[in-house]
Amino acid sequence: MAKPRGNCLVAQSGGPTAVINSSAAGVIQEALKQKLGRVFAARNGILGVLREELFDAGAEGAAAIEALRRAPSAALGSCRFKIKSLEESRAHYDRILEVFNAHDIRYFFYIGGNDSMDTADKLAQLARQVNYELIVMGVPKTIDNDLAHTDHCPGYGSVAKYMATTAMEAGLDTEALYTADTCTVMETMGRNAGWIAAATGVAHRTEQDAPHLVYLPEVPFSIEKFVADVKDCLRRIGRCFIVAAEGIADASGQYIADQGASAFGKDAFGHTQLGGVGDVLKTIVEQQVRAKCRSVRPSTAQRVAEHFASKTDSDEAYLVGKKAVQLAAAGTSGYMVTLIRKSSSPYRCTTGMIELAQVANADRKVPRDWINDAGNHITPELRDYIIPLMRGEVKTQIGRDGLPVYVRLQRRLLEKNTPEYKA
Amino acid sequence: MAKPRGNCLVAQSGGPTAVINSSAAGVIQEALKQKLGRVFAARNGILGVLREELFDAGAEGAAAIEALRRAPSAALGSCRFKIKSLEESRAHYDRILEVFNAHDIRYFFYIGGNDSMDTADKLAQLARQVNYELIVMGVPKTIDNDLAHTDHCPGYGSVAKYMATTAMEAGLDTEALYTADTCTVMETMGRNAGWIAAATGVAHRTEQDAPHLVYLPEVPFSIEKFVADVKDCLRRIGRCFIVAAEGIADASGQYIADQGASAFGKDAFGHTQLGGVGDVLKTIVEQQVRAKCRSVRPSTAQRVAEHFASKTDSDEAYLVGKKAVQLAAAGTSGYMVTLIRKSSSPYRCTTGMIELAQVANADRKVPRDWINDAGNHITPELRDYIIPLMRGEVKTQIGRDGLPVYVRLQRRLLEKNTPEYKA
Repeated sequence: MAKPRGNCLVAQSGGPTAVINSSAAGVIQEALKQKLGRVFAARNGILGVLREELFDAGAEGAAAIEALRRAPSAALGSCRFKIKSLEESRAHYDRILEVFNAHDIRYFFYIGGNDSMDTADKLAQLARQVNYELIVMGVPKTIDNDLAHTDHCPGYGSVAKYMATTAMEAGLDTEALYTADTCTVMETMGRNAGWIAAATGVAHRTEQDAPHLVYLPEVPFSIEKFVADVKDCLRRIGRCFIVAAEGIADASGQYIADQGASAFGKDAFGHTQLGGVGDVLKTIVEQQVRAKCRSVRPSTAQRVAEHFASKTDSDEAYLVGKKAVQLAAAGTSGYMVTLIRKSSSPYRCTTGMIELAQVANADRKVPRDWINDAGNHITPELRDYIIPLMRGEVKTQIGRDGLPVYVRLQRRLLEKNTPEYKA
Repeated sequence: MAKPRGNCLVAQSGGPTAVINSSAAGVIQEALKQKLGRVFAARNGILGVLREELFDAGAEGAAAIEALRRAPSAALGSCRFKIKSLEESRAHYDRILEVFNAHDIRYFFYIGGNDSMDTADKLAQLARQVNYELIVMGVPKTIDNDLAHTDHCPGYGSVAKYMATTAMEAGLDTEALYTADTCTVMETMGRNAGWIAAATGVAHRTEQDAPHLVYLPEVPFSIEKFVADVKDCLRRIGRCFIVAAEGIADASGQYIADQGASAFGKDAFGHTQLGGVGDVLKTIVEQQVRAKCRSVRPSTAQRVAEHFASKTDSDEAYLVGKKAVQLAAAGTSGYMVTLIRKSSSPYRCTTGMIELAQVANADRKVPRDWINDAGNHITPELRDYIIPLMRGEVKTQIGRDGLPVYVRLQRRLLEKNTPEYKA
């Protein structure tokens, strides 16, 4: 596509990460450098576009934009707002183009996962249909690391580093107190793919080191096998640190987190499930292994732990944002930037690109042969894959109170140029 | 007391912290320097003494002992084993002296909290009664910060820094996604005292910053008031990040964590409570405020987060260990080393000492006038108290895999010189 004249828009979508702001910084700085008109941002992703809640990212100032490289969560604002197909949700797509047109937006950079790439793809299609000149580029982001066609996803290296470290530290806690608190279960994010749980396996440098057992959604979970695994671990080293992805499920596909009642009967668990899979496994350990068990659930804190983010991850997040703009400035549209690993040792990584539609309709699970035969830990291949992504630490600015200083953007909304719209 | 000839023993007790090993390093290094005989350590606290499971800390090597200053959890091993009064548990105390005598232990340094100081005090009493020459010194340790007669407790500054940072980061997550996940509850440790929950309040630098509501055990908790607080916060800023200590209780003293069934009836919650107070509050928010709520429970990970420990805390932990040995070498016995704050700004702190018996029978809660009138946040006085304790970062050694490297001691057990003893 020829390089259109007009303005840029960048938006963030889905679950925050430690480095999605680094991608935003890459987009904004490069767009300003390439002089692609004014650089706007949407507040709260596509929801902000629908509501015409836009702000001038360039007006935030160079220091604030640079500080995004060391700021967690989604500083532009994010959303969980899935837009369906062009047929089902045509009004939404029309509205988006209405807002784009009102602000002469000709470049759209969408930082997100599967659903966001789908939205971006549909939008690009519609723009072509209605002859609205628009360049659309996707910037990958997800802690879940489950986007297809890219070696890994920005956001993953940081959650991997933090959760492996947390397993290591909480594992040492269990090691010190095993005479009282013998077992610990840590629950990680990961509904469909076990990449985060898998990363904690790297902390298991020796037999003594936590985690001793790691369960991923990729392997059907059996309570009987789990109880046997824990008992075996207790026999060998007298304690057991367990990591389980929130999405582990039995052979029939039922989530273990939902199995409280069926596994133990109503009298034991009641009707409403509080807590998650970690609490279910804790109860299994206490009732069936008869060992005291603790449950750790970092929850959202795991994906925004900037204070121990991976520098490799942060730098790559910046790179894919910058690269998306460079490609757009050269007239490329309808692609997501990818990461291509050239070598693991020494680690070398470059960027590529893939059509948005191909990303939207695929996902990527942990390969079965990167999980051990017993289905309760990772293999050396998986370690070698993950380790380079966790290397280096982002230098956090620390305030006079001993706590990190993270930038908050002003986000002064532009005047609205279109009719009121409810979204 | 005259300075006896003989050996030293150091032991750790109770919940691990990020800096209890720093105290052990202070004791061991200073005892070696003062040439107080051989420097032994007990594996797993007083349990290791009873079982005569001792090892030569000096034999671990200077590098390993120095590395303890940057290692989380309790490297000597810890335990939860409460010994009662001399009358009730005389056999235990006799056994301890039997083991001490077998290894000519004349200096005992016990790093722990209330219960440990009580045990140390009783042991000192019995030693006097039976004319066993023994110097006993207590080294304070507790993340709960609830020991009396000391300005603060080693271990607290680090958990404070980590949990305030976690509230800040997870708070930014809620801020980015408030259109979907509007509220978040983070549960902190603290059964009887709210110091840890209080520390997170420091992250609330502006009205926008999390946490917006902080609940401590020191103020009776009302569900009605809580629901009103959350609704008010949502009206003001559209989201709400809540921190609650695990020990919050209603006016009758019943823990909120135990109130699932009574607050909602069996049909809603069932009989067995999974999860903790965070999950109860999450359910209240979802049922009574009708807002989506997340629950974060760092659990044991909070107290051993070495990767973001406070340098001030770590240095003071080392200092109290070293000081205990210096006092012992001068013939002092029956005291715990304390921290005395000379000034908050600039922060200056020195050591003092207090009789073990006085520590054993007191605790220290957050003063009511350091909590706001509404009982849902901290006052500036409390901020000023906490901030100096969180300053500085411990430099963690990072391995080739991007994860911290923490020392594990060899702990080669000494040959046993006493009859078999079951404990």
